[in-house]
Amino acid sequence: MQKTTNSTLYEAALEFHKIPRPGKTGLELTKRMVTKADLSLAYSPGVAAPCTEIQNNPEAAYKYTAKGNSVAVISNGTAVLGLGNIGALASKPVMEGKACLLKRFSNIDGVDIEVDENSIEGFVSIVRAIGNTWGGINLEDIKAPECFVIEEMLSNLLDIPVFHDDQHGTAVVILAGLINALSLVRKRKEDVKIVINGAGSAAIASAYLLESFGFSREKIVMCDSKGVIHRGRDDLNEWKKHFALPVSITVRTLTDAAIGADVLIGCSVAGAFSSAMIKNMAPDPIVFALANPEPEIRPEDAQAVRNDVIIGTGRSDYTNQINNVLGFPYIFRGALDVRATKITTRMKLNAAHAIAMVATQSPEYGKNHIVPSPFNEEMLRAVSYAVASAAISDGVAKIADFDLSTYNQRLNELRDMLKRKFNDGE
Amino acid sequence: MQKTTNSTLYEAALEFHKIPRPGKTGLELTKRMVTKADLSLAYSPGVAAPCTEIQNNPEAAYKYTAKGNSVAVISNGTAVLGLGNIGALASKPVMEGKACLLKRFSNIDGVDIEVDENSIEGFVSIVRAIGNTWGGINLEDIKAPECFVIEEMLSNLLDIPVFHDDQHGTAVVILAGLINALSLVRKRKEDVKIVINGAGSAAIASAYLLESFGFSREKIVMCDSKGVIHRGRDDLNEWKKHFALPVSITVRTLTDAAIGADVLIGCSVAGAFSSAMIKNMAPDPIVFALANPEPEIRPEDAQAVRNDVIIGTGRSDYTNQINNVLGFPYIFRGALDVRATKITTRMKLNAAHAIAMVATQSPEYGKNHIVPSPFNEEMLRAVSYAVASAAISDGVAKIADFDLSTYNQRLNELRDMLKRKFNDGE
Repeated sequence: MQKTTNSTLYEAALEFHKIPRPGKTGLELTKRMVTKADLSLAYSPGVAAPCTEIQNNPEAAYKYTAKGNSVAVISNGTAVLGLGNIGALASKPVMEGKACLLKRFSNIDGVDIEVDENSIEGFVSIVRAIGNTWGGINLEDIKAPECFVIEEMLSNLLDIPVFHDDQHGTAVVILAGLINALSLVRKRKEDVKIVINGAGSAAIASAYLLESFGFSREKIVMCDSKGVIHRGRDDLNEWKKHFALPVSITVRTLTDAAIGADVLIGCSVAGAFSSAMIKNMAPDPIVFALANPEPEIRPEDAQAVRNDVIIGTGRSDYTNQINNVLGFPYIFRGALDVRATKITTRMKLNAAHAIAMVATQSPEYGKNHIVPSPFNEEMLRAVSYAVASAAISDGVAKIADFDLSTYNQRLNELRDMLKRKFNDGE
Repeated sequence: MQKTTNSTLYEAALEFHKIPRPGKTGLELTKRMVTKADLSLAYSPGVAAPCTEIQNNPEAAYKYTAKGNSVAVISNGTAVLGLGNIGALASKPVMEGKACLLKRFSNIDGVDIEVDENSIEGFVSIVRAIGNTWGGINLEDIKAPECFVIEEMLSNLLDIPVFHDDQHGTAVVILAGLINALSLVRKRKEDVKIVINGAGSAAIASAYLLESFGFSREKIVMCDSKGVIHRGRDDLNEWKKHFALPVSITVRTLTDAAIGADVLIGCSVAGAFSSAMIKNMAPDPIVFALANPEPEIRPEDAQAVRNDVIIGTGRSDYTNQINNVLGFPYIFRGALDVRATKITTRMKLNAAHAIAMVATQSPEYGKNHIVPSPFNEEMLRAVSYAVASAAISDGVAKIADFDLSTYNQRLNELRDMLKRKFNDGE
């Protein structure tokens, strides 16, 4: 794809959002409403019937309302893309975008909700009160460390999956990319040294997931804006503390940490990686520069100093797009289909393995295609199945008799429907 | 239309809500999302552009997001149809239904939100925090008297229209029906005696609107479950007090109040009107039996004792459907189009006049067709125009240079689009 300059992209994006009507989302009626008889069923007096059924048994909401196929994309706008705390309303284009991606890639009816409340308690009480409207909640662009507490509290308060995508969506796709990148350069997870720059929601959650996968915590060097996180520092929250290195380590800066590193992951800010850092990494370095919209280093700049580098970004206009869109639509699809009450670590690990596996089956697979394209048609089946089966194994699936044996086929039918509906293909 | 029995209707409504997929609503993507280039605009990195614009100027949300064409239908489920306090989740089929009606009749993208919070303060703080997600808020099925306070507080806290449909939607359509019914029986508003049974949200708001229209407050007899509301009672809230009659009046019961009444309006409970009450009313009585889903008296039962009665209900399966669907879609259309900050009394009065006028232009107009059918194609243009022009007169329209001269034409184009899209006609 041809790269546009930033100002052209800016204008084109405004035009896209404005014409022919503002925004990206609308309401679709899924039932016929042509005659008075239709209205008698959809509205008064017929609508009293499903109300009564749900009053008697809340689970009937999954049978008679759109709840079970819907996910709310909820933010307070405190940590949006690379833009920071821009407020609830200004985050709306991102939330509408996520709602669209849910529909586009897994047929989930996304609903964007912008919450003008930054305190943990206030935000949690609001989302708790409205949460049962939907089958799942995708938290988005909420600043750390508040996001960790918010997600945990809401997960405990609601019996639907609550998933902070900036944390876990990113973590899942990073892990998927890393599985393939390491395989391509023939390095073992036990041996590699990983440097993570950024200690916000995505970085912390990724480090946790990498650890769950089997990377050694001792070989993960996490840096925040003040440099390497180690136990000698007195400014660490509990999540940073978990990854703090012994005070005895001598490296104190990102630049020093990058020397000899096998993997450099940025969940930080535009331009945080210098050419020198890339130059000083171990042979066959892997760099994920995931700051959005402008990465820590542009792929062409990294490749200019190292032709052996595998580099991924979060952007749609480069290959190796390490982007949450590869995760959350399918993770929610699998979770909703078995009516999971939460998203477990195994569901995330399974999702990462499935994403990695789909990439390897693509004819393009290689250093520039370590993860699938967002339009890879195998993703829906492979990832949703992996997530659903993990939910069942972990005992968090509320549909006790879910039929996994026909699930692959049903997902393929859904894939075909989406393909027809959205005219897939580039 | 053939009447179904209650149990058949119940089953048919469940089937309608369940098959082929649960519920009535889904997400529609209004922008193309086929290629990577599309995603670059809709999502990262392009989406940063509209975010930045909105951060700099909140009004830009109307330009780049779906806000300006969306209305949230919000309830806590404390006063649903004739079902009472059934809880937030059980009210979802009604809220989804309202969202659909907004789309079907005025192309507004409705979003249903069920709020599990009954306290005034809690509910207000939740809706205040999420309210700016949309261009307007349709409160629904919230019990009185809390609903009066909630609506007023939210109206003051948000600069988008907040409209409690059970109050004002009902009031507008009642007034419209009454304008035509009185004209048909040649009675003047100054002369008629009106009895209103029920003193909840719909009854109180209707009484206020009738008073604003010019009906004499002294000739409105309001009854609650304890009988006629008069100043000798010590159990009245401030809204009931406004309509309390002098303690000197001698009638104390609904049955007595109905004797000689010209108009009997029920916003109460199934079966509240007896045949005897109808019999004892003045000549050419007007009866609006609006309890849902089962009215205060069935039309066939009223007509059995009086062949001069004009009777309306809230139901889709009788003629004279005095139902909010004739009001809220068009009131919000007009309000959104001029970006009204609130719904004023003049906007409601104008809406009632427009609805009444449309009915008189129908070839069916007469005692059995005092209000238009929900499918009357003139409604969108006539009512939305009336509301928008009142908003401009009242100075509550934020679009200062709104072009009323072409608005009729634009509404007609929208009507034609809706007709094509939803295959109008019975």
